[in-house]
Amino acid sequence: MLKKRYLMTPGPTPVPEDIMLEMARPIIHHRTAQFREIIKSCEEGLKYVLGTQNDVVIFTSSGTGAMEAAVANFLSAKDKAICVMGGKFGERWSEICKAYGVESIDLNVEWGKAVDPASIKNALEKNKDVKAVFTTQCETSTGALNDIQAIGKIVSGSGAILVVDAISSLGACEIMTDEWKVDVVVGGSQKGLMIPPGLSFCSVSEKARQMLATSSLPKYYFNIKKALKSLEKDDTPYTPAVTLMIGLAKALDMIREEGIQEVIKRHRRLANAVRQAMKALGLELLSASPADSVTAVEVPEGIDGAALVKSIKENRGVWFAGGQAQLKGKIFRIATLGFMGDFDVIISISALELALKEAGYEFGVGSGVGAALNALLK
Amino acid sequence: MLKKRYLMTPGPTPVPEDIMLEMARPIIHHRTAQFREIIKSCEEGLKYVLGTQNDVVIFTSSGTGAMEAAVANFLSAKDKAICVMGGKFGERWSEICKAYGVESIDLNVEWGKAVDPASIKNALEKNKDVKAVFTTQCETSTGALNDIQAIGKIVSGSGAILVVDAISSLGACEIMTDEWKVDVVVGGSQKGLMIPPGLSFCSVSEKARQMLATSSLPKYYFNIKKALKSLEKDDTPYTPAVTLMIGLAKALDMIREEGIQEVIKRHRRLANAVRQAMKALGLELLSASPADSVTAVEVPEGIDGAALVKSIKENRGVWFAGGQAQLKGKIFRIATLGFMGDFDVIISISALELALKEAGYEFGVGSGVGAALNALLK
Repeated sequence: MLKKRYLMTPGPTPVPEDIMLEMARPIIHHRTAQFREIIKSCEEGLKYVLGTQNDVVIFTSSGTGAMEAAVANFLSAKDKAICVMGGKFGERWSEICKAYGVESIDLNVEWGKAVDPASIKNALEKNKDVKAVFTTQCETSTGALNDIQAIGKIVSGSGAILVVDAISSLGACEIMTDEWKVDVVVGGSQKGLMIPPGLSFCSVSEKARQMLATSSLPKYYFNIKKALKSLEKDDTPYTPAVTLMIGLAKALDMIREEGIQEVIKRHRRLANAVRQAMKALGLELLSASPADSVTAVEVPEGIDGAALVKSIKENRGVWFAGGQAQLKGKIFRIATLGFMGDFDVIISISALELALKEAGYEFGVGSGVGAALNALLK
Repeated sequence: MLKKRYLMTPGPTPVPEDIMLEMARPIIHHRTAQFREIIKSCEEGLKYVLGTQNDVVIFTSSGTGAMEAAVANFLSAKDKAICVMGGKFGERWSEICKAYGVESIDLNVEWGKAVDPASIKNALEKNKDVKAVFTTQCETSTGALNDIQAIGKIVSGSGAILVVDAISSLGACEIMTDEWKVDVVVGGSQKGLMIPPGLSFCSVSEKARQMLATSSLPKYYFNIKKALKSLEKDDTPYTPAVTLMIGLAKALDMIREEGIQEVIKRHRRLANAVRQAMKALGLELLSASPADSVTAVEVPEGIDGAALVKSIKENRGVWFAGGQAQLKGKIFRIATLGFMGDFDVIISISALELALKEAGYEFGVGSGVGAALNALLK
């Protein structure tokens, strides 16, 4: 039987065919007027999506590379930084700090919960010499959304810079970099920006830029100062991933055409439909402050979580993400991220219903899809 | 008038249409059996091209990222390393060492000349505590080929590891990693391997592997130990550039099908035809030990080098590389690298002849192409 495949993971996300074909055109050289236009277009598009006037440097790497850049370029050995944990990606900040000899003050947050901004305030008050607060907008591993606006209000009053991993929220959840006073936003290409993995981004505020001068940590490939200098000439210090940049320019054009507010509304609409469906199916969300890019759902008692995700994939051709680390087998995650519309949600819920029924879970077949449709009617 | 475009630069190089279309297929997730097969296939193909049994780690970055990895993972601050200069890319080794607080003993070599292996021997004898020798196989900026086999004989007898930047020679010039005792070979995707920029490689010998344990330099994204551990399960620590990896697997299949010895012979044949043509045109090569991947040619007296390259590009649609840094305007470089055959050479020489004639250089029109054809007849 023909089995169509559907990628519903929080990255990589589906890439529009138009972008794939654009990237398949004959390769061009990167030191050309033609490619400088591409860089310029990516830069303008990223500023638009991020809501910022700050420069945004682009690296050829996964998002983790830009996270490392945000540590190595602004801090020095023995500096203190607050790392907001609460999931696999929050913990990554702390790991990178440790790798560079930066003292990480780990703010532990229960996985699935959003961080309480007051706890950041307390930590900053106790540690006046903190140089940076590293946090995550959407914690992909739990589907929790942190309140970056509230955190920005707190951190901007201190001497520290606020660095936000927005890898899985960029182009899906609202982020107003300048208005919310976020100094550094880190992003990646294979999530809301709808292109394959391989590019990462880092915006740099004036406050952050001043810390570039004092940072003594070693860096070369991820040198932000050098990247900013190249950017003045719409250039990159090293050969960029030419085809991915061409794809990014096109993806950002698509986002500008739809309008970022519309893009954000679409993600909210789709995520809400997923949440209504889960409620109708009697399933619990892991997070009380769920992000609109990925919804983490608790596997019901008596059902094998890993087997459920596997069956949805193998029998239905639909690819959900399972749980990572301590959440392995305990949750599944449905993305509403990037190039997705109403019927992607319907496919996800339908596949889930079929697999749940087969696994012996009791519910009225169609009730999840019905709830999703009702949510989409509004 | 229709102007067809021809990319004859030493990276990015033309990507075969079949590979472009393969990369344009629907995106897949990287944590899948399907993608693990891709990683496995890339790994086997890279070992074949490198002539090694050593593991080869793959990073999503430009080649410079893998160069940085080769410094940050094997050395510690204040370690001594010999850096063979002789061009822009040789100098990059020294820059990276300095960025990491590694003491670089710079072996200055006149740009365009190959390094004398005896000078490495002398430097090693004078500095018994040297931990690594960093060198370049084909110095892209000058077209000079270093004798890696001879250097391998010298360095393998010392306590130092031999690290070779083979970015622009891999898949074009012979490298026998194990037989020549090269500890670490660094490569990139957009040269002889025929795919777009965005991937880099690093092979790791047993001698190098032992230095991983003692290295105290900070690293995270480019952590080789972590990458080797993931490789055991045909995996990568961070999301790889999925589409580029799919392209790489296909490119390596093409190389295996042609046979690496045939690939090397083809590059020699094409480069020889270029060299014969230059001789017939009365032009001098910059290097007395030219590589087969890129030929650097001195701009004749009285001709404006930058204008020549520009006219070949704008009037003929053929993209040569000019000179970099101190060679700006003084040379042009014709690549015979990657997905190229006999008629690519004929196009390059024809375009050059047209532009030279227009620039007032005196020669018998057709003599360059005739010499190239004669060379290709043999």
